[in-house]
Amino acid sequence: MIGIGVVGYGYWGPNLVRNFNEVPDARVRKVCDLRSDRLALARQRYPTVEATTDYRGLLDDPAIDAIVIATPVSTHGEFALQALQAGKHVLVEKPMTATSDEAVRLIDEAERRRCVLMVDHTFVYTGAVRRIQELIASNALGQINYYDSVRVNLGLFQHDINVVWDLAVHDLAIMDYVLGPKPYAVAATGMSHVPGQPANIAYLTLFFEANLIAHINVNWLAPVKVRRTLIGGSRRMVVYDDVEPSEKVKVYDKGIQLANTAENLYKLLISYRTGDMWAPQLDMTEALKTEAQHFIRCIEDRVPVITDGEAGLRIVGILEAATQSLAERGRLVELDRAQVRS
Amino acid sequence: MIGIGVVGYGYWGPNLVRNFNEVPDARVRKVCDLRSDRLALARQRYPTVEATTDYRGLLDDPAIDAIVIATPVSTHGEFALQALQAGKHVLVEKPMTATSDEAVRLIDEAERRRCVLMVDHTFVYTGAVRRIQELIASNALGQINYYDSVRVNLGLFQHDINVVWDLAVHDLAIMDYVLGPKPYAVAATGMSHVPGQPANIAYLTLFFEANLIAHINVNWLAPVKVRRTLIGGSRRMVVYDDVEPSEKVKVYDKGIQLANTAENLYKLLISYRTGDMWAPQLDMTEALKTEAQHFIRCIEDRVPVITDGEAGLRIVGILEAATQSLAERGRLVELDRAQVRS
Amino acid sequence: MIGIGVVGYGYWGPNLVRNFNEVPDARVRKVCDLRSDRLALARQRYPTVEATTDYRGLLDDPAIDAIVIATPVSTHGEFALQALQAGKHVLVEKPMTATSDEAVRLIDEAERRRCVLMVDHTFVYTGAVRRIQELIASNALGQINYYDSVRVNLGLFQHDINVVWDLAVHDLAIMDYVLGPKPYAVAATGMSHVPGQPANIAYLTLFFEANLIAHINVNWLAPVKVRRTLIGGSRRMVVYDDVEPSEKVKVYDKGIQLANTAENLYKLLISYRTGDMWAPQLDMTEALKTEAQHFIRCIEDRVPVITDGEAGLRIVGILEAATQSLAERGRLVELDRAQVRS
Amino acid sequence: MIGIGVVGYGYWGPNLVRNFNEVPDARVRKVCDLRSDRLALARQRYPTVEATTDYRGLLDDPAIDAIVIATPVSTHGEFALQALQAGKHVLVEKPMTATSDEAVRLIDEAERRRCVLMVDHTFVYTGAVRRIQELIASNALGQINYYDSVRVNLGLFQHDINVVWDLAVHDLAIMDYVLGPKPYAVAATGMSHVPGQPANIAYLTLFFEANLIAHINVNWLAPVKVRRTLIGGSRRMVVYDDVEPSEKVKVYDKGIQLANTAENLYKLLISYRTGDMWAPQLDMTEALKTEAQHFIRCIEDRVPVITDGEAGLRIVGILEAATQSLAERGRLVELDRAQVRS
Repeated sequence: MIGIGVVGYGYWGPNLVRNFNEVPDARVRKVCDLRSDRLALARQRYPTVEATTDYRGLLDDPAIDAIVIATPVSTHGEFALQALQAGKHVLVEKPMTATSDEAVRLIDEAERRRCVLMVDHTFVYTGAVRRIQELIASNALGQINYYDSVRVNLGLFQHDINVVWDLAVHDLAIMDYVLGPKPYAVAATGMSHVPGQPANIAYLTLFFEANLIAHINVNWLAPVKVRRTLIGGSRRMVVYDDVEPSEKVKVYDKGIQLANTAENLYKLLISYRTGDMWAPQLDMTEALKTEAQHFIRCIEDRVPVITDGEAGLRIVGILEAATQSLAERGRLVELDRAQVRS
Repeated sequence: MIGIGVVGYGYWGPNLVRNFNEVPDARVRKVCDLRSDRLALARQRYPTVEATTDYRGLLDDPAIDAIVIATPVSTHGEFALQALQAGKHVLVEKPMTATSDEAVRLIDEAERRRCVLMVDHTFVYTGAVRRIQELIASNALGQINYYDSVRVNLGLFQHDINVVWDLAVHDLAIMDYVLGPKPYAVAATGMSHVPGQPANIAYLTLFFEANLIAHINVNWLAPVKVRRTLIGGSRRMVVYDDVEPSEKVKVYDKGIQLANTAENLYKLLISYRTGDMWAPQLDMTEALKTEAQHFIRCIEDRVPVITDGEAGLRIVGILEAATQSLAERGRLVELDRAQVRS
Repeated sequence: MIGIGVVGYGYWGPNLVRNFNEVPDARVRKVCDLRSDRLALARQRYPTVEATTDYRGLLDDPAIDAIVIATPVSTHGEFALQALQAGKHVLVEKPMTATSDEAVRLIDEAERRRCVLMVDHTFVYTGAVRRIQELIASNALGQINYYDSVRVNLGLFQHDINVVWDLAVHDLAIMDYVLGPKPYAVAATGMSHVPGQPANIAYLTLFFEANLIAHINVNWLAPVKVRRTLIGGSRRMVVYDDVEPSEKVKVYDKGIQLANTAENLYKLLISYRTGDMWAPQLDMTEALKTEAQHFIRCIEDRVPVITDGEAGLRIVGILEAATQSLAERGRLVELDRAQVRS
Repeated sequence: MIGIGVVGYGYWGPNLVRNFNEVPDARVRKVCDLRSDRLALARQRYPTVEATTDYRGLLDDPAIDAIVIATPVSTHGEFALQALQAGKHVLVEKPMTATSDEAVRLIDEAERRRCVLMVDHTFVYTGAVRRIQELIASNALGQINYYDSVRVNLGLFQHDINVVWDLAVHDLAIMDYVLGPKPYAVAATGMSHVPGQPANIAYLTLFFEANLIAHINVNWLAPVKVRRTLIGGSRRMVVYDDVEPSEKVKVYDKGIQLANTAENLYKLLISYRTGDMWAPQLDMTEALKTEAQHFIRCIEDRVPVITDGEAGLRIVGILEAATQSLAERGRLVELDRAQVRS
């Protein structure tokens, strides 16, 4: 039985508590938050879980094996570091940390302590994203030409991070999981429409070697919720629409074929291929349930962590570069390969 | 009765002929194309219209008052210039010309000859775009914060122009019509997935003074057809989805409100406003019919041309700058204000 | 503080427990079910709630003021009667009972005991249905011409009740709430595709005095989930699509206008009116939360019960008549007005 | 070269003329209508086609081999009979005639004259319906359990026929083509909301031997256009949505499986099967083009007529029975098998 302590019972924390509460091998022991109304809510829902303002009490509790962190981004690094130093396993909400330096430090500390360090890249644990990963890995899509995502809605304006850190992080985590190659540079444009606040709209282009390009469109100020990703392969293409209640992943047998004409070697013939569409059945288990189970298995059975610290670091690196590019109206910013260490 | 000569009977030409054929004050006299099969088709459909390979014959025909040009972009400039020099009014398919220099020359020639010069920015003549223009002009949306368009499908690869010239031109024409301010710079990224061919995927960011930003996502290699534009205003927001059979324009009474708290002048309170949605009834007349009638009225009554040579030039200028930026992975390219002459 | 006992912790019971658990003035004291795995689940989720197989223990417990019944339909009558006889208030899942006779008996018993008797017609407590009720009551739609609902999916085949009792009951409950007039007869067709089992597909027509007709299409064997209701009024029409994540209710300013021509009194001119569409903002509170709060208020403040026993009885009467008509391939079955007592 | 005369140039006639005009082996010679404005429109579009009010002139013209009838339903029988008597082949718009008697007479006359008699059941010639027919014929769906169609919109109120003759005729024609078995009885309910006018809303249930049931919902007074058919088979199910621009036909690998448990022979176990969805690519040729080509081939090559007089008669027979049932609030009306002659 793995004892869990959760720090942060705001927007996401309750989902973590609810899911860990139903994993057979885990038990939530304590919930920590500074706000008394949030603690009262936790107590009403889970009368047997201790609700406290004292984070140190979680770290010192031998019945707690792992710390789950769902606090503001700026605090991730410090909370996680203390937990690792106390010998606790750590699951930290995305993005992993506010800086690459902090991410590197957590990775090093986890290795030293032989603790599990996992980042809550939730979408990676959905049936949809796992199915897309399989389609790409099995070469069913052929060579990937582009990855193009729109993720917009009328969202909660964050005061401490811009929309890239809040929303694009999801797409970067999905891309990191489903695509083989990693990007070498990023160009980002965007704008803040609220004086003195971080950018609430942003457009990222990610450059890869070979024939691949990626683009992410994120916006806190959109009237409708859009969660649509197009993935273009040389053999087939995917539309992943997370707003659809069913058939979230559609595979299109569409594309182009290239041929050189006999008469004229210099003229390229492009012909179009439009075939059937196919929507594979997906595992509809709640992602966080799958993720919670995986975290427990990583602790108990030492299976490799899917969304590990290195993945978290790669994404923080891109977020930093994108924020820099955004401030310079789209100037191309190279990603530091040494640091990314992929 | 205005006599019309049409040059180019490929993809778009038949739509032009069909619509001009039903305008009461116009009559299509001749259709010109170099391909005998296209001429045969024109003859079968319109036995009384002369189908010819001789463009000069159109220019010399006194029964022809206006030339409608639906040929490849690279030929627009020369065909239009000859027509104007022959004293004919000209309607030229988008984009107006292959270069800004050609566009300027046509504007000058039309002024000198006192001929009507109109660009076929078709979408400007749809009920949807006209309604959006009214909403913005009447301040129903408040100050415009962003314009964000996705225009993708499995499209005809062009060999002479990239996807920006083929698809983004529509969005640029709509923006030019509905937005007051004009952009001062453009950054574009994209890629060609077919060796030796122009870019088939592109992302444009347009920078404006004040609080406005625009973005256009165009792609010839998408499995689904998307034609969706979000326009964010400070008072209301619009979703314009041209693929919808009805309710193409939806107006959302959504947004944010800003207030400074009394206790703390430095902390900005952002509150969310979500109200009703409203889909105004639209004029569903075929755009090309409205446009053909407008062209005839411009000739007969000398009303101002809505999509005139200056609009055409502004857009060609942006297309040139975007193509340049695209080649340099998103480098910001300033738009030449002198030339744009807006 | 109102003490609650819940009987039945299968599909719907957990939703009832979860919602009553968050109503400030209520506390769930006991959960009763015969299945030990369900009791174990209840205990895991709510360690402080007593999970028991002993229904009598709920009735005898003075800390329990109200019984919430979420068991198979055939048991509703007996469980509810015992609860009322024990002086407990009752909330019973839809349909209220398996027969009209049972429903009448519950109504009488509740009156005698001065207990609250409420039926869980959940949809009546949604923001969407409440908005539709307001639109109709305020005459915004004009005179109602028809009510037409499709409610189909690949659903759980019930062994004890047919699809009318399982699905059409929702539409009947909504109609009972939003429409003024009550139907006088029903004709139903349908079929069972599983030998020896109740009908899994059914079509109901409900006849009303005046100009109103209603139709309900229910099906357990459909590949897609459809929840769409059209309501046609003389002034405006409504589309209520419960599968839509947002904009569930759309009001169309569409219809026809009738006029007699001057020349010919016998010829009726029908002209079409197509105007704007409008989607009012809806209260998105979970229906069961609103309903649980209403039940507590009915007990504490004796406010009138919205979905009371009479409403439950009216609907059971229609379900009985529809089942009879179904067995006779659509024979018109009059509804017993005396019994319906509306 | 088959010479064509078209009678009726109202709503549907122009589509027939346009399509026959592009069939290589056919030529439209004359268009007949009593309204001078319609004739003027025909002349403007087709200056070489003779537009006339004299139907007799079409029948007497030796250059006309076939008559295409697109006039009000009440006149179909007489126009078609005269054409057949003059030795002309006939294509008549749906429904074939106003009565079964007329339909029988046309079939007999066509046999006697050895003329082609074809009914314009347009949907039968769409790629979607042909694909569905293939799926059913190849047993890909298994045994068909139900056919359920909704066909509603704010439509043109007809003064001479009710909504069943106007809209349900399409579904009956499709069913007649794709389903093997024919119905033995019909029950219909509905209503007229305009005094003195035919029913504008109707619900039909069609009864078949074995396990099959069909239902059709038609409505001229709906705020939105719906064209959705569900076809439930024992192996797979189909959703055919004609309003969708692409993917009109979706095949769901969904259903139920039945098994008797070992312990208890009387208890049936129903398990659910939910698998992939698949949207086959469809031939998107305009149906009327395919149909016009088929009509010409029937004349030239004497291939069997797909939508022949017998099909037309079967459908008229159902329309008559449905109208009768409608007048008696859903009374079951047996279909006259002798007359239907299938």
